[in-house]
Amino acid sequence: TAVRGVDPDEAEEFLRLFHTENPASGPVEPRIVAVREEIDRTGTYVHTHDELEFGARVAWRSSARCIGRLYWRSLHLRDRRHVTAPEEVAAECVGHLREATRRGRIRSTITIFAPDGPSGPGPRVWNEQLIRYAGYRAGGRVLGDPRYVGFTDTARSLGWLPPSPMGRFDVLPLVVTGGGEHAAAGPQVHEVPRDAVMEVDLHHPEHAWFAELGLRWHALPVISNMRLDIGGISYPAAPFNGWYMATEISARNLADADRYDMLAEVADAMALDTSSDRTLWRDRAAIELTAAVQHSFDEAGVSLADHHGESQRFLRFVEKEEAAGRHCPVDWSWIVPPISGGLTPVFHRYYDEPTDTGPMFRLDDQAKARGRGCPV
Amino acid sequence: TAVRGVDPDEAEEFLRLFHTENPASGPVEPRIVAVREEIDRTGTYVHTHDELEFGARVAWRSSARCIGRLYWRSLHLRDRRHVTAPEEVAAECVGHLREATRRGRIRSTITIFAPDGPSGPGPRVWNEQLIRYAGYRAGGRVLGDPRYVGFTDTARSLGWLPPSPMGRFDVLPLVVTGGGEHAAAGPQVHEVPRDAVMEVDLHHPEHAWFAELGLRWHALPVISNMRLDIGGISYPAAPFNGWYMATEISARNLADADRYDMLAEVADAMALDTSSDRTLWRDRAAIELTAAVQHSFDEAGVSLADHHGESQRFLRFVEKEEAAGRHCPVDWSWIVPPISGGLTPVFHRYYDEPTDTGPMFRLDDQAKARGRGCPV
Ligand code: HEM
Ligand code: HEM
Repeated sequence: TAVRGVDPDEAEEFLRLFHTENPASGPVEPRIVAVREEIDRTGTYVHTHDELEFGARVAWRSSARCIGRLYWRSLHLRDRRHVTAPEEVAAECVGHLREATRRGRIRSTITIFAPDGPSGPGPRVWNEQLIRYAGYRAGGRVLGDPRYVGFTDTARSLGWLPPSPMGRFDVLPLVVTGGGEHAAAGPQVHEVPRDAVMEVDLHHPEHAWFAELGLRWHALPVISNMRLDIGGISYPAAPFNGWYMATEISARNLADADRYDMLAEVADAMALDTSSDRTLWRDRAAIELTAAVQHSFDEAGVSLADHHGESQRFLRFVEKEEAAGRHCPVDWSWIVPPISGGLTPVFHRYYDEPTDTGPMFRLDDQAKARGRGCPV
Repeated sequence: TAVRGVDPDEAEEFLRLFHTENPASGPVEPRIVAVREEIDRTGTYVHTHDELEFGARVAWRSSARCIGRLYWRSLHLRDRRHVTAPEEVAAECVGHLREATRRGRIRSTITIFAPDGPSGPGPRVWNEQLIRYAGYRAGGRVLGDPRYVGFTDTARSLGWLPPSPMGRFDVLPLVVTGGGEHAAAGPQVHEVPRDAVMEVDLHHPEHAWFAELGLRWHALPVISNMRLDIGGISYPAAPFNGWYMATEISARNLADADRYDMLAEVADAMALDTSSDRTLWRDRAAIELTAAVQHSFDEAGVSLADHHGESQRFLRFVEKEEAAGRHCPVDWSWIVPPISGGLTPVFHRYYDEPTDTGPMFRLDDQAKARGRGCPV
């Protein structure tokens, strides 16, 4: 990855934003002069702790696809900009899991590793999320998560040994490229310790048979392959987590035909008429899956949003942003939940368009391909 | 309404499209020469029957928000371009209802009235749809469809007398402005005869109590306030119908908080726990409403799509359009159904952007305002 110099205008724009929204940080002019001088001299500059924290929070606030933005000010920063060695990156990712999970009282957290810079690229985490389940091709079918069949192959080709016997919910190892002088060494595989991964066994508040489906899901969603851009500085490894909204698990991960594809099994157990889609068996099965996820997470004491409550919170967020006079980018098709869209208030309005400037999480094409185990 | 002359280039573009897609119509050049000469001489031109039919069908094919486009070639044309007098427009609208309903074996139909032209504007139908229910403000609540409280007031101010006693499902009268020499006379109100309106009483395949909710809906959705533009000619009154997709009735018209708002009542009858949205009572109620609409329409022998089947058909349409090398405009947020969006295949892909050229249905701002009974 070629690393270009930092654009001083982008830096200045960010610094002005930071000082405008944080008056206590004093006048912006001296900081601009210092940063321009630093860029002239070194090709880059170093964010203060407060700038970095603010930048990450604004990147969250600007995530057009995220419905969970109301509490963007609460994002907790783990500043690991000094970390570039792959084994340290992996260890810090595990540290992130432990610190953010808190036995279920999940804390929105971001760990920021070394940025790209004149002395080389920052490290990268190849995984889409720090916790995901392996997928194994077995005959014509897939055991585990079909989305990660390619990534699982990559991990194995790098030396990972799946558990024996292989299961439907085997946590994938981390695949990490180091930064700086470590970059040339290529990717390393690191197992995630079992005790860093909190999971929830799924059962249904009314249907006892549900537990026998043997479903579970991990408590913490940590997106780990998006780049964080702040004021001209680019952090290619900056894993962040919130908590789940139930439908992500119940109506996508466990329901999609190219994921765990569980709707038919649930419908059969519910004794629904599956002879035609028109009997609404898919619709009913997805709702009971959602009820099971919510109930199981609640009983386990794990933070979890539901699509109704989160939609309302989201509209409060949009109102606050409008009241603050800020453009509030929204990607309707990602904000509206995958079930009962029209029953949530987010469905019934228009929003500002997504933008492409300011602090922002971005998914590189290369990172996207690697996260799916595709050739890059 | 000022009526501008027809743009000969728009006319030519349409004629080329018509002749390209209809080789049997012969070479396009003589027709272009004739039409350009006609526009020079008269300021406009007259579509042949085949051009008009094709133009209307292409306008449907290009409706980015319509999931029902697979059978666009089957659109049946009622050519009423000679009609401008308001009472005749109203009578032809009633004729449309009768011819398209066919006791439930609904036929996709469009009635095209006189276009805007040098001799004056075409007629207009003010109603959003030919069949809609009145809304009456009563104390702090609304009896009937809250969406049409304004339109109901308009109709009354023009002399319409609601039935006595007023009900929740009183079919609104047609409000029509004539075209040409009739335009200056202003809008007229015309009652829709009861026997031209097929309706379906709603009951549920399993829950006997459902019928006691007293719900019903009309069989035929006829959008009547969109302008049809073809090759530079503009038809301001061109009511068209397909058949309903169940969720339009069950998850929008009967469910939206600013429409019949029936979810809570259904949930109560289902004895669901409505203490919190998180119990998914809304989701479950919307599904049973949908099941009731489907079951009742099916039993009454009325054509009705469901969101699963229609999604599949829509993807076949998109594939066919792609195979024909045509741009296929799609508005994702309208195509994805209001419930179970993620469970339908239309959710999981990207599409071509909507466009603004070629034969097309358009909603004028003025028509939009009139359809809601707002001041224009
Ligand atoms: C606190 C609880 C949170 C909730 C309930 C939440 C909810 C969601 C949901 C439902 C999505 C859509 C996911 C999908 O459909 O695949 C999403 C996307 C996203 N969220 Fe959040 N979120 C939370 C916290 C965060 C945090 C802390 C950040 C960053 C600091 C963040 C940044 C994003 C981004 C960048 C996306 C888009 C991901 C992509 O493009 O694949 N979210 N969020
Ligand atoms: C044959 C069965 C048909 C089905 C099942 C169908 C289905 C739908 C649905 C579900 C919508 C969205 C409605 C909403 O959310 O408010 C829609 C919109 C639309 N349809 Fe169709 N449709 C059919 C026939 C037609 C025909 C015959 C035409 C025109 C000739 C047409 C033109 C349109 C247009 C212009 C819209 C957008 C309306 C607006 O902007 O408000 N459709 N259709």
